[in-house]
Amino acid sequence: MQFFSRLQHAWQHQASLLCVGLDPDTAQFPGTLKERARHDPLGAIEAFCLGIMEATAPYCAAFKPQIAYFASQRAESVLEKLAVAARDRYPHHIWLLDAKRGDIGSTAEHYAREAYDRYQADAVTVSPYMGTDSLAPYLQYKDRGIFVLCRTSNSGGDDFQMLSTDHHPLYVEVATQAAQRWNKHQQIGLVVGATYPREIEIVRRVAPDLPLLIPGIGTQGGDLIATVRAGRNESGGMLINSSRAILYASQQEDWQEAAATIAQQTGQAIQNALANR
Amino acid sequence: MQFFSRLQHAWQHQASLLCVGLDPDTAQFPGTLKERARHDPLGAIEAFCLGIMEATAPYCAAFKPQIAYFASQRAESVLEKLAVAARDRYPHHIWLLDAKRGDIGSTAEHYAREAYDRYQADAVTVSPYMGTDSLAPYLQYKDRGIFVLCRTSNSGGDDFQMLSTDHHPLYVEVATQAAQRWNKHQQIGLVVGATYPREIEIVRRVAPDLPLLIPGIGTQGGDLIATVRAGRNESGGMLINSSRAILYASQQEDWQEAAATIAQQTGQAIQNALANR
Repeated sequence: MQFFSRLQHAWQHQASLLCVGLDPDTAQFPGTLKERARHDPLGAIEAFCLGIMEATAPYCAAFKPQIAYFASQRAESVLEKLAVAARDRYPHHIWLLDAKRGDIGSTAEHYAREAYDRYQADAVTVSPYMGTDSLAPYLQYKDRGIFVLCRTSNSGGDDFQMLSTDHHPLYVEVATQAAQRWNKHQQIGLVVGATYPREIEIVRRVAPDLPLLIPGIGTQGGDLIATVRAGRNESGGMLINSSRAILYASQQEDWQEAAATIAQQTGQAIQNALANR
Repeated sequence: MQFFSRLQHAWQHQASLLCVGLDPDTAQFPGTLKERARHDPLGAIEAFCLGIMEATAPYCAAFKPQIAYFASQRAESVLEKLAVAARDRYPHHIWLLDAKRGDIGSTAEHYAREAYDRYQADAVTVSPYMGTDSLAPYLQYKDRGIFVLCRTSNSGGDDFQMLSTDHHPLYVEVATQAAQRWNKHQQIGLVVGATYPREIEIVRRVAPDLPLLIPGIGTQGGDLIATVRAGRNESGGMLINSSRAILYASQQEDWQEAAATIAQQTGQAIQNALANR
């Protein structure tokens, strides 16, 4: 199944555009797991992520583990276990590895193997700075997705992405190349921050069919209605990510219920924004 | 000690600008280690990398492990061991982690921790696409280095890096920001491919003091004399990387001697090019 079809299935089956980011930071864990993390960090990380996945699965279409949080804590083995759990328990959800790698040739082949084989990712985030050949090894996996960084939600995103090139800002050129050159097999998406709804609109004009991965709601505070209005297309068009607001909704015993509540509310707010034409 | 001082010490102590890239691909290993890799891949990768480091240490100033090769083979534990070996056995060499990460905020903090704490890197390669705040967490480690991707040696590097922005191509803007905004603590370098000596010259004009990490000699075939002429400055100015040409110089029993020979020849060729004013 091509990635776009798989994504569309996830949207429909889950009736949600929400993506839950898995950024396990032991310092922010709820009390009992924070305690456990002192002597058994890998066990605590695994229990926390599985608990979040279980609590939020009914309300989201995708999980997005951020690999930096695992790598800094020697927790690659946990990420492998979570990938297996995702496949077994949540087969209708997208498993999206947030890695933002960007390299070329045989190095990029090894990164693609890391993402798609080792961590069984349905899709992976990639940086475009090194250009077309940095995407080539990922494109070989014709049934998997690639979300290319386009317009990021941080303030420093302006430094280069907003520079005017011959025709338009750099991020628009990235979106254009993604839509026109790279998307031969319905597998390319774009990362566009919720903090810039006006720029999501511009991206939608040059890339009407590409799914967007939109971070920046929740703790980063983007405008949800404006974002949804700008990013939606006929098939859904977006995965809207929230990480910390859901993960760390409560530091108490009720952390799973609290995460479920915030995920449900966020998913519902997205649906309301979609209905609000 | 600031990173620039540490790098200058490495250049002088080793009388070399050569950087040996550690890209362990078991499919290309010499016969006996390839055999061993079938049942003991981690042992084979460790033995190969340690063997290359031992053979080439006299002729180089730096080792550059490329993390993708370790990640795709579940060999993070090997990379940790190599980091310890580098520190214990080759204290005058730079240990440069090639990771090309690029993210922001707490995620970038975790990547910095991965590179500098877990893998004890003296320096790390970083992608600039997300802008200034993606560098901030690395800058907190004031004694470590950061090589920012600037003008890469692959053909796709043209796609975005050569786009004209208001004043000059994107890669020149990256070099300018690196030299003028980011280099407060003598810790920023730039990655510039040997395949474009003319552009190394341009980078040198806007960033005269920044060390350059130059891949693209050896199997990628850049012009060494033109590269050295364009990139050198008073303190040395460059780490010139070669990976495959050294690593896979021989598939026979003599792989260590062959790697040593190519490293010595490459180091000498760089010195000759430096002398050839």
